[in-house]
Amino acid sequence: MEFVIPEKTSRCKLSPIREVIAKGANIPDFISLAIGNPAAEAIPVEDIQRAAKKVIDEMPLDVMQYGPAIGDPEFMEITEQRLVEKKGINPKNQIMSVMSGSGQGLGLVARAFTTPGDEVYAEAFSYPSAINSVRCVDARVVGILTDEKGMLPEELEKAAKSGKGRYIYLNPTFSNPTGRTMPLERRKEIYEVARKYGLLIYEDDPYGDIRFKGEPVPAFKSFDEDGRVLYAGSYSKTLSAGLRLGYLYGEEKYITPIRNVKNVMDGECPLYNQRIIVETLKGMDYEEHLVRLREIYSKKCEGMLNVLKEESSSKVQFSEPEGGMFVWATLPEDVDINKFYEALFANAVGAVKSEAFASELSNPGHSFRLNYTYLPLERVQEGARRFGQVTKKMCGE
Amino acid sequence: MEFVIPEKTSRCKLSPIREVIAKGANIPDFISLAIGNPAAEAIPVEDIQRAAKKVIDEMPLDVMQYGPAIGDPEFMEITEQRLVEKKGINPKNQIMSVMSGSGQGLGLVARAFTTPGDEVYAEAFSYPSAINSVRCVDARVVGILTDEKGMLPEELEKAAKSGKGRYIYLNPTFSNPTGRTMPLERRKEIYEVARKYGLLIYEDDPYGDIRFKGEPVPAFKSFDEDGRVLYAGSYSKTLSAGLRLGYLYGEEKYITPIRNVKNVMDGECPLYNQRIIVETLKGMDYEEHLVRLREIYSKKCEGMLNVLKEESSSKVQFSEPEGGMFVWATLPEDVDINKFYEALFANAVGAVKSEAFASELSNPGHSFRLNYTYLPLERVQEGARRFGQVTKKMCGE
Repeated sequence: MEFVIPEKTSRCKLSPIREVIAKGANIPDFISLAIGNPAAEAIPVEDIQRAAKKVIDEMPLDVMQYGPAIGDPEFMEITEQRLVEKKGINPKNQIMSVMSGSGQGLGLVARAFTTPGDEVYAEAFSYPSAINSVRCVDARVVGILTDEKGMLPEELEKAAKSGKGRYIYLNPTFSNPTGRTMPLERRKEIYEVARKYGLLIYEDDPYGDIRFKGEPVPAFKSFDEDGRVLYAGSYSKTLSAGLRLGYLYGEEKYITPIRNVKNVMDGECPLYNQRIIVETLKGMDYEEHLVRLREIYSKKCEGMLNVLKEESSSKVQFSEPEGGMFVWATLPEDVDINKFYEALFANAVGAVKSEAFASELSNPGHSFRLNYTYLPLERVQEGARRFGQVTKKMCGE
Repeated sequence: MEFVIPEKTSRCKLSPIREVIAKGANIPDFISLAIGNPAAEAIPVEDIQRAAKKVIDEMPLDVMQYGPAIGDPEFMEITEQRLVEKKGINPKNQIMSVMSGSGQGLGLVARAFTTPGDEVYAEAFSYPSAINSVRCVDARVVGILTDEKGMLPEELEKAAKSGKGRYIYLNPTFSNPTGRTMPLERRKEIYEVARKYGLLIYEDDPYGDIRFKGEPVPAFKSFDEDGRVLYAGSYSKTLSAGLRLGYLYGEEKYITPIRNVKNVMDGECPLYNQRIIVETLKGMDYEEHLVRLREIYSKKCEGMLNVLKEESSSKVQFSEPEGGMFVWATLPEDVDINKFYEALFANAVGAVKSEAFASELSNPGHSFRLNYTYLPLERVQEGARRFGQVTKKMCGE
């Protein structure tokens, strides 16, 4: 007899970024603006090398044996301390679950806090793993309309009236993919809706420390009186993505079951990697490192935007991020996005189309996400130039 | 409004081993035979240290950036090669998904290949994460009765007639917790039932390379004509548990969706850790290392069994493992297992009771799992002595 794979599992697809890589693989001199990697020059290579050697020399047996199931105490302490000091988060009753990157929290929360048929609310264009992790457990992502300040509270409330809502997924600061930041006032309005309908808020904040312009906006977690915010942070964008370390921070009553589900799903994160982060942080000035990193990204972002504005059709709109890693380019509605997508490849440049981020399959959008952090500045600008040329060809001057 | 955690999630509990650790924490000179860790002296510390330094020196940026989503090609190649050469597995159409320890496969397969109400078949006493990962996704573990050769095919068939079965979980070689190995003939009978009812077989084999007595028994995967076996292996027991690396190996049509679900759940395993395993394997004679490791475990196992036999009530039965890490001690049915468990603590020794491994809550058993690998030999023997004393007190001479 044949074994049949459940439909929910077939629904689980690999990242759309990979489609761009695959299609670009055979194009000479192809420039991919699709990958969301940090810049190589922004990684503190020597600090991490030093830390890796120190840990393996000083505590080899500890890191080679099974580590603490809930995470390394010093990793959690040093991480929490910064949340308290730099983000004004109140640590009372809050605990941490160490994750393989903040992305692991998406899978765990969808898995632990929804049952089939439940609803999760996300902006119309959101991070693909946040959407897919919900679909994969047979819950439903409901895309909420946005304006330039992000998710619209009245639209959220309309949806929440179903009574099926479990949590709101938000990447409110330098959103992936739109690059937008939700202002404090809007955050408070969203929080009130969450309160009214008993929703949790998953605040995904991997980019929060990469602000290179404008004034910081307080995290949801900093005014979370009810303890309904799960705050996800990461060292992937500021230290090393390859060490695979992030965390979920929140009320003990929510994080304890998340820890348990993680324990059953894949056990603890490697202690070695956690200790490398701890020793890297202790051996360097992290705040100074962030200043340097912001300068690098500021320059690359400005470099990309300057070329885009000069070389593009006046009918295309570009977001102007104050931080993070992405520019969101929106085409006029009458342009065929799939033809445009193919024209990009014909011009040896790749970007991710908004469809990949669509919370509602019926609203695939007509935008592209452009990354400015990963490639060297001159390649970023050449990529932007090619993108601009395609906009002129496809959207008119 | 309050957020309510779904019942399936509250069901997810932490490992019962931790209960023993917690209860023993305040007992002076307490000996825990509960932890299933490898022996410190069996870890090739210097080889791993050398590899860790080599990798971070030679390819720092590769391992600090995001790595390949499906795993490091050389890690997969070197691992597959040994499966082909040493286990006689046919690699045709087979691919690998790199996991955070073989345990991650348990969570992913339960998640990807069952829907609520489905059944998974396991021996009456099985590895807790294999059971819990199924319960956590609202599928049902059905405990199948065993004899000294393991799962009974006729009992399996009785259960499979429900038509709700999805896969059989087995740890057929040096089982955790029973230490038993299923003979080849029994494996073939079980395979026939799987074939008849369209079941997959999850062959969990973290201990297979730790045989120190008797003749090797071929893996299910080595005679898997239909491609229905998912083979889970690990470097946790033979190199380093702390690096958190294992794998799931099987038919492309099954492993591809597992890769996709893993991608959505937590992304890739750290490339650094995979490269450390690769460089460790290239820099050492792994087969010779396994010979040394088997000698260490053989001596510890024999040391424990000698003391247990000398010092215990004649009414207690001990499994005589030919490999792996555990002895299974079975008490007479009339002994109160909970009183016995408390008497162990009163005698400053801890072990895990069979209830922790019970596939059916209605059959908690009357056995204990004793680990002989982790502690130094003299502590293992002192622990066995104390255990023996309790058996005499509680079960009669």
